[in-house]
Amino acid sequence: MRPSGRQPDQMRDVNITRDYTCHAEGAVLVEFGNTKVICTASVEEGVPRFLKGKGQGWITAEYGMLPRATGTRNGREAARGKQGGRTLEIQRLIARSLRAAVDLKKVGENTIYVDCDVIQADGGTRTASITGGCVAMVDALTHMLNKNMIKNDPLLRLIASVSVGMYKGTPVLDLDYPEDSKAETDMNVVMTQHGGMVEVQGTAEAEPFKREEMDAMMDLADKGIKELFALQQKALGW
Amino acid sequence: MRPSGRQPDQMRDVNITRDYTCHAEGAVLVEFGNTKVICTASVEEGVPRFLKGKGQGWITAEYGMLPRATGTRNGREAARGKQGGRTLEIQRLIARSLRAAVDLKKVGENTIYVDCDVIQADGGTRTASITGGCVAMVDALTHMLNKNMIKNDPLLRLIASVSVGMYKGTPVLDLDYPEDSKAETDMNVVMTQHGGMVEVQGTAEAEPFKREEMDAMMDLADKGIKELFALQQKALGW
Amino acid sequence: MRPSGRQPDQMRDVNITRDYTCHAEGAVLVEFGNTKVICTASVEEGVPRFLKGKGQGWITAEYGMLPRATGTRNGREAARGKQGGRTLEIQRLIARSLRAAVDLKKVGENTIYVDCDVIQADGGTRTASITGGCVAMVDALTHMLNKNMIKNDPLLRLIASVSVGMYKGTPVLDLDYPEDSKAETDMNVVMTQHGGMVEVQGTAEAEPFKREEMDAMMDLADKGIKELFALQQKALGW
Amino acid sequence: MRPSGRQPDQMRDVNITRDYTCHAEGAVLVEFGNTKVICTASVEEGVPRFLKGKGQGWITAEYGMLPRATGTRNGREAARGKQGGRTLEIQRLIARSLRAAVDLKKVGENTIYVDCDVIQADGGTRTASITGGCVAMVDALTHMLNKNMIKNDPLLRLIASVSVGMYKGTPVLDLDYPEDSKAETDMNVVMTQHGGMVEVQGTAEAEPFKREEMDAMMDLADKGIKELFALQQKALGW
Amino acid sequence: MRPSGRQPDQMRDVNITRDYTCHAEGAVLVEFGNTKVICTASVEEGVPRFLKGKGQGWITAEYGMLPRATGTRNGREAARGKQGGRTLEIQRLIARSLRAAVDLKKVGENTIYVDCDVIQADGGTRTASITGGCVAMVDALTHMLNKNMIKNDPLLRLIASVSVGMYKGTPVLDLDYPEDSKAETDMNVVMTQHGGMVEVQGTAEAEPFKREEMDAMMDLADKGIKELFALQQKALGW
Amino acid sequence: MRPSGRQPDQMRDVNITRDYTCHAEGAVLVEFGNTKVICTASVEEGVPRFLKGKGQGWITAEYGMLPRATGTRNGREAARGKQGGRTLEIQRLIARSLRAAVDLKKVGENTIYVDCDVIQADGGTRTASITGGCVAMVDALTHMLNKNMIKNDPLLRLIASVSVGMYKGTPVLDLDYPEDSKAETDMNVVMTQHGGMVEVQGTAEAEPFKREEMDAMMDLADKGIKELFALQQKALGW
Repeated sequence: MRPSGRQPDQMRDVNITRDYTCHAEGAVLVEFGNTKVICTASVEEGVPRFLKGKGQGWITAEYGMLPRATGTRNGREAARGKQGGRTLEIQRLIARSLRAAVDLKKVGENTIYVDCDVIQADGGTRTASITGGCVAMVDALTHMLNKNMIKNDPLLRLIASVSVGMYKGTPVLDLDYPEDSKAETDMNVVMTQHGGMVEVQGTAEAEPFKREEMDAMMDLADKGIKELFALQQKALGW
Repeated sequence: MRPSGRQPDQMRDVNITRDYTCHAEGAVLVEFGNTKVICTASVEEGVPRFLKGKGQGWITAEYGMLPRATGTRNGREAARGKQGGRTLEIQRLIARSLRAAVDLKKVGENTIYVDCDVIQADGGTRTASITGGCVAMVDALTHMLNKNMIKNDPLLRLIASVSVGMYKGTPVLDLDYPEDSKAETDMNVVMTQHGGMVEVQGTAEAEPFKREEMDAMMDLADKGIKELFALQQKALGW
Repeated sequence: MRPSGRQPDQMRDVNITRDYTCHAEGAVLVEFGNTKVICTASVEEGVPRFLKGKGQGWITAEYGMLPRATGTRNGREAARGKQGGRTLEIQRLIARSLRAAVDLKKVGENTIYVDCDVIQADGGTRTASITGGCVAMVDALTHMLNKNMIKNDPLLRLIASVSVGMYKGTPVLDLDYPEDSKAETDMNVVMTQHGGMVEVQGTAEAEPFKREEMDAMMDLADKGIKELFALQQKALGW
Repeated sequence: MRPSGRQPDQMRDVNITRDYTCHAEGAVLVEFGNTKVICTASVEEGVPRFLKGKGQGWITAEYGMLPRATGTRNGREAARGKQGGRTLEIQRLIARSLRAAVDLKKVGENTIYVDCDVIQADGGTRTASITGGCVAMVDALTHMLNKNMIKNDPLLRLIASVSVGMYKGTPVLDLDYPEDSKAETDMNVVMTQHGGMVEVQGTAEAEPFKREEMDAMMDLADKGIKELFALQQKALGW
Repeated sequence: MRPSGRQPDQMRDVNITRDYTCHAEGAVLVEFGNTKVICTASVEEGVPRFLKGKGQGWITAEYGMLPRATGTRNGREAARGKQGGRTLEIQRLIARSLRAAVDLKKVGENTIYVDCDVIQADGGTRTASITGGCVAMVDALTHMLNKNMIKNDPLLRLIASVSVGMYKGTPVLDLDYPEDSKAETDMNVVMTQHGGMVEVQGTAEAEPFKREEMDAMMDLADKGIKELFALQQKALGW
Repeated sequence: MRPSGRQPDQMRDVNITRDYTCHAEGAVLVEFGNTKVICTASVEEGVPRFLKGKGQGWITAEYGMLPRATGTRNGREAARGKQGGRTLEIQRLIARSLRAAVDLKKVGENTIYVDCDVIQADGGTRTASITGGCVAMVDALTHMLNKNMIKNDPLLRLIASVSVGMYKGTPVLDLDYPEDSKAETDMNVVMTQHGGMVEVQGTAEAEPFKREEMDAMMDLADKGIKELFALQQKALGW
């Protein structure tokens, strides 16, 4: 039933490659099937003004897409002179999610920038960004510990994310673009390693959805995210 | 337990005043307690470029706050030269929600702009905007029918929205600002008159939330939104 | 002769409502007939850079219009990414006028932001903004005295403003939109309580105007502004 | 009494040089003492969108200052990414004034851009711009007649402008920068060749001004502008 | 002598990988040592306004860097709201260079966008972009021929580019970042397959350079670019 | 052969007028035939952030064109809200060139802004700007010495610039606009008084150029720049 031939509860092949580029403190290429995102984590001393002197750190995120990551070319946001609403919405989601993984007090007065740049898009770029961005952030935290910038590991738990949706009346896991563009409902879920929910964002694209459908989608998300945690841990060598 | 003395499942006083200003096709003042939003619906002929010639209409939304709608003054977005991420995120949510209430084919090649401007904020501005914006949009659709711009009523159903959250470990309905700023979890729910869900956006501000908590919050939202539908219908004289 | 049936020297009904919203130090709804403007005065510690260390305060103003304050919708300035020339011109006028009412030395190193947001427009929005903004500013100054932010009242005098014009060859007072859009000449006058002039801005929209016409318009402005001072004082309970 | 040693009713030396640059249809260097402004008038076919198909033309103006036209360097507006409020206010004034000199119907569906660029500033840049811009516009209209772009001369009358003010209690004509920066009141007046007023903009910089003072300043403006008309006519060879 | 241990006339390892991403008509990863750039070529029907109706096509280029392509993080241009001078300068150079490789008449009224996005930077990003962008453009032209968008191959010749410089008094080929940041002179050369020069941009960073030094650098550039043409041809399977 | 009737190796008449305006520390009008550029040099205390505390000064440049400096009117960059790529490219070139003329250590923690504003354009605006800007900068340095802002003259050497090109197969010196718009190759060269090269930027507009052609153009540039140094020295009274 799915265009890709996958089972409803089957994720795409997911790959997490660390040290993908050489300059950043964390640099991950994450692939959810044909969706490919470079996630880098950069450590800088200092915090934004609203946090100065509060004895805590900050984690922020930025999201971008290469103009031809998609089937037709999208104008470059830098050339248009502003980031679009979709971009801002996604990078706010990534940053909130990543902050749920750490104890900001233990980050000290430092900021970690997680940049998620989509080099090829096939649906699920925000969930891939969160999943890969978390691994890049862990590498950056390790870097800070090794450099004695911080004393205690701020990591509380891994987080990961997947999309679920109602496609032709069936709940499906990890939508690719052909599904996403036709789905009745699209839901992005971010969870912690210990099963808690960090973000749930469900949108009825066409028809309103029912509580039972939401429950079925949440179950699928739970299954998929558990698989992602295993892949994150394997990539990290844990 | 709640700062306002309300019961956990008790909404604030909600008022919906139609014809609040004189120029717009729909003009509603919506009040959720101390949160006050002017929602106008403006009808214009024509559709955005991406819809030209497709024989359907469009509904879009813009959201703003007066600089001193809040406890401390916020710089005016027009003066800063751009709308912030929060603003863009909210107006995208409002527009998607309102589009779920109508059959865009029946709107013809016309556009309805729903402007939601917060003149006083005390939490829940986006849910008030959706709830009031829907009534303004209904008035605009009636205007279009009366002016013979369209032949059939595009309205499929009313939509309304409320926030729910976990506050000091208890699920509560319709958070005001003192609760919102302290809540562990904040969830905005948009539903249709017939019980379907249009948008669910839950965020763990501090601690991840559990499925049981999510279920309890969804139940509260369902209760609150039913009360809102009654108030919308009363305001509309149905 | 006037579309509204008013006498040439007759103002519209003017209402000044204090404490219209709950957060600002001064919060006034001012109505000149169908023109309705929310004027808030916000007190912040500190002054702009060019005044640092000069031992004086500052008063500034910002002006905006809700998109559907007018008969047809105007695009939101925040969405367009800049304030238009008309907006900047008006807010510069409001700010200069208000500064003429106070002794900035006595304001200390504090700034008062007066925000004038038009929620419904029917001509004369800038004169209503100045008249209502002055009352909001007085409330903010009282707040500063009560909070011991300042020791002596900086208020030198009230200021108020009205428009006058040549309409079908006759000098008229307080133009509404149907008059304003047809007037040969439009003049905005700001005066002090003691009869001094603060700003005079006259523009020939169609035909140049004569000195006698200017004199007749100035006489009308003088009459109208005296009425406004009475209303300001009544609103302030003086 | 005046820093320049001039009599209260004495203008600075004014020079109007036509054909100052070689490309524009009208190109004037106007000097009011040390204030020097290049005014070019450029003719383009077509009108702005809001005038399309109305069978009339348009005249618009833009104003700029070289960064070091003034005593201390001002940041370049192009580099800052926007024109300031002062600039927009001035160019709106110039354009309104120039439109009062012509019958736009006779301009056809053409637009004249009048660019006023201050290369050296010493007070009165806006009045010099209007006075010189009018001459540049006349040259552009002549060009249009010669090229058969239009059949009848659209010029209704010359316009010119001068500033007047209250300086140390005395009404003075044509303020230079040392006076302007100290004046109690500053008034810019635009008049037609036939004695009608087009714009009057008076501002009390420090103390409110009285009707008698305003009358005295208006008399001075009338005298100065008459001298400017003689200089415009001489420059034009009339 | 060189930090990398290379001979003065030795290029870094250069790799050109076609079909690196799946959506674009041409998609090349080009590597000059540690410098890695994704070059995509996108074909769109139509031409910019200034070329409409002239019966020719257009080739344009955009250049960007991921924020952490470099040793320290650079703010994202989309977030800052504008492209910097360096970016604009580079993308103008890439586009001019690529246009020298084709007969624009034969491109028809189509536009090819060449996007060069640096994912890892180690000096020479503009020369790598031109060299890789040319291969992506060739693939896009082949796509147009295969799709019958055009009848005749517009390609006149391959172009390629390399940097040369004076480093510690010695002319060197293909500077990496450690050399580039210390070089006395840096010169970027773009040449055609047949030995003609398309662009020569030499800059004395510290000391002015002599004609003999320029000649020596030009000889090195000639050698390096010949090697690049061999690699381009091999990658294209010619 | 040349449209102007000049010999291939003949420059236009060049004039350098110092003290052209009255406020700037250096103020030069430079004319290369009909190309006229006002170059001012402004001295400000302090340096950009990236140089703070490094004990050296900075020289920067900005370039602009009056809208009607050219044959058809160009939209004002301040009105469009950004400087174009050509502007940024030119001002970066001017600034780099001027910095090659001075020892920045001797400038102290001061910044010199060189503003080059084209009031009339006929080709070669960037080379005129560099040549005139250098003289303005020398005047600013003399001002600093006279005011005891610095102790030792930072000037290392004069720099000057000229364009050369291939026009109808012949190398020509100092292209005017009719030549520039038709030239096969256009090259801008910046040299020092002692014969060193600071910048060489050659572009094949139509056909690639050969080494022999480049050599011939460089010889012409050398001749022209020597003439410019004589004119700079004469203007400076050396």
